[in-house]
Amino acid sequence: MPTADLSLNLATVRKQWSMREAVEAAARHGFAGVAPWRDMVADAGTAQAVRLFRDSGLRVTGYCRAGLFPAADAAGRQAAIDDNKRAIDEAAAIGAECVVMIGGGLPQGSRDIVGARQMFIDGLVAVLPHARAAKVPLALEPMHPMYAADRGVVVTLAEMIDLCDQFGEGLGIAVDTYHVWWDPNLAREIARAGSRIISHHICDWLVPTRHMLTDRGMMGDGAIDFPAIRRMIEAAGYRGIQEVEIFSDHWWSRPGDEVLATAMERFRTVCQV
Amino acid sequence: MPTADLSLNLATVRKQWSMREAVEAAARHGFAGVAPWRDMVADAGTAQAVRLFRDSGLRVTGYCRAGLFPAADAAGRQAAIDDNKRAIDEAAAIGAECVVMIGGGLPQGSRDIVGARQMFIDGLVAVLPHARAAKVPLALEPMHPMYAADRGVVVTLAEMIDLCDQFGEGLGIAVDTYHVWWDPNLAREIARAGSRIISHHICDWLVPTRHMLTDRGMMGDGAIDFPAIRRMIEAAGYRGIQEVEIFSDHWWSRPGDEVLATAMERFRTVCQV
Repeated sequence: MPTADLSLNLATVRKQWSMREAVEAAARHGFAGVAPWRDMVADAGTAQAVRLFRDSGLRVTGYCRAGLFPAADAAGRQAAIDDNKRAIDEAAAIGAECVVMIGGGLPQGSRDIVGARQMFIDGLVAVLPHARAAKVPLALEPMHPMYAADRGVVVTLAEMIDLCDQFGEGLGIAVDTYHVWWDPNLAREIARAGSRIISHHICDWLVPTRHMLTDRGMMGDGAIDFPAIRRMIEAAGYRGIQEVEIFSDHWWSRPGDEVLATAMERFRTVCQV
Repeated sequence: MPTADLSLNLATVRKQWSMREAVEAAARHGFAGVAPWRDMVADAGTAQAVRLFRDSGLRVTGYCRAGLFPAADAAGRQAAIDDNKRAIDEAAAIGAECVVMIGGGLPQGSRDIVGARQMFIDGLVAVLPHARAAKVPLALEPMHPMYAADRGVVVTLAEMIDLCDQFGEGLGIAVDTYHVWWDPNLAREIARAGSRIISHHICDWLVPTRHMLTDRGMMGDGAIDFPAIRRMIEAAGYRGIQEVEIFSDHWWSRPGDEVLATAMERFRTVCQV
């Protein structure tokens, strides 16, 4: 039985374990859920993944990841739309509670960030009916501005919440501490997000950060005030599960059981209000 | 005589040249100004620096850098205030057109970014009368959010412009493309800054960025649309000098004359409206 309202994003142990090993370890360590990535489900086969998650008794708190709509030409943008629809279908098949969507980077050679943001919106609008029909919410996740060029042109909660305001049903917000902790409007925007918050990821910001993608921190090892952000999120009405998601060369080099035990201990000691 | 309305931030060639060599090279390459750092002026001696800049005939477009007020205790905060007053005096002595102020990082061991931002404001208010008396404007420079923990807790133009609104005379805005290009409110905030813009730094964002501090890019080598940002700045009323400031292990490893020639060429070909 789960011992904490904590989910494990499987990227956290992707270098140590197969998806099956990671899911079994998550259950063993008392996690209440897991969040797989598309490549993991593809490697296992969707039918096998469905059985694995069902037999685990764990929630599937999110499916990573989709969005990434900007592309250099119309064919590329259509391919991204088609791929997002497949991601939604896969998420529905495995019982994922949402699909995590990020902005995507600038198209190859482009310096038009405003245009790329519009491509994200256009793609989102194109796939939203599919998501609604599948009853899979799309969790819009702003990315840290240091990823604006190559991964996520949408960088603030405010922009993502504006999209929820505009397009409504079927959209929600993913608040990842790593991506939003720096935002001077954090409290205001989390309050505005309110009932649209459907996903809460936790990960710390290390000082120094030695690599932009693969030097994220275990909760408590960095600069982020987790209780402060959790208080904002609870005040907005979300009291649900948190999901630990850490991309880290350090933690990928440690035994998986050590990573999970540490994450669970830090969740209890660092992340509580 | 200067051949372009471009200033050289001397950090760009700090590994290759002494301050004297860099200033002479800037004049030789047709730059209209330079911007020194405090350690350079300290090493040369203020009196010698005064003569160097005067004899060069170049503008001193800024003095780097001050601010950095957050500290773990009152003594540390007072020390920062005292140090900022000295920076202002040095700037006045060398004829610098402004002192560049950044937020500073979180105090050692602190996770209170809201509190640190207030420390920045408190320090700014404490030194502002000194700056006004010295007739040295303070150019408030928001830093990229990836520096929020260790260098600059103030990360948006909006926050800095709010301070100009609140405290008025003696404050201005420094717009550094590297620090602000990702901001979804960039056009709106540059327009709001209007006549408060007193400094315009240029530097590109590389993909990938291999080091958070020392892998900044030469204009044209990265993701930033310089003409688009310059158009916003000119529409806001600032048509003045641009200042190239690049922290880069790559460019620090090249001959200084190559760096200056490249910067001048890119300024002409990449940064014009």
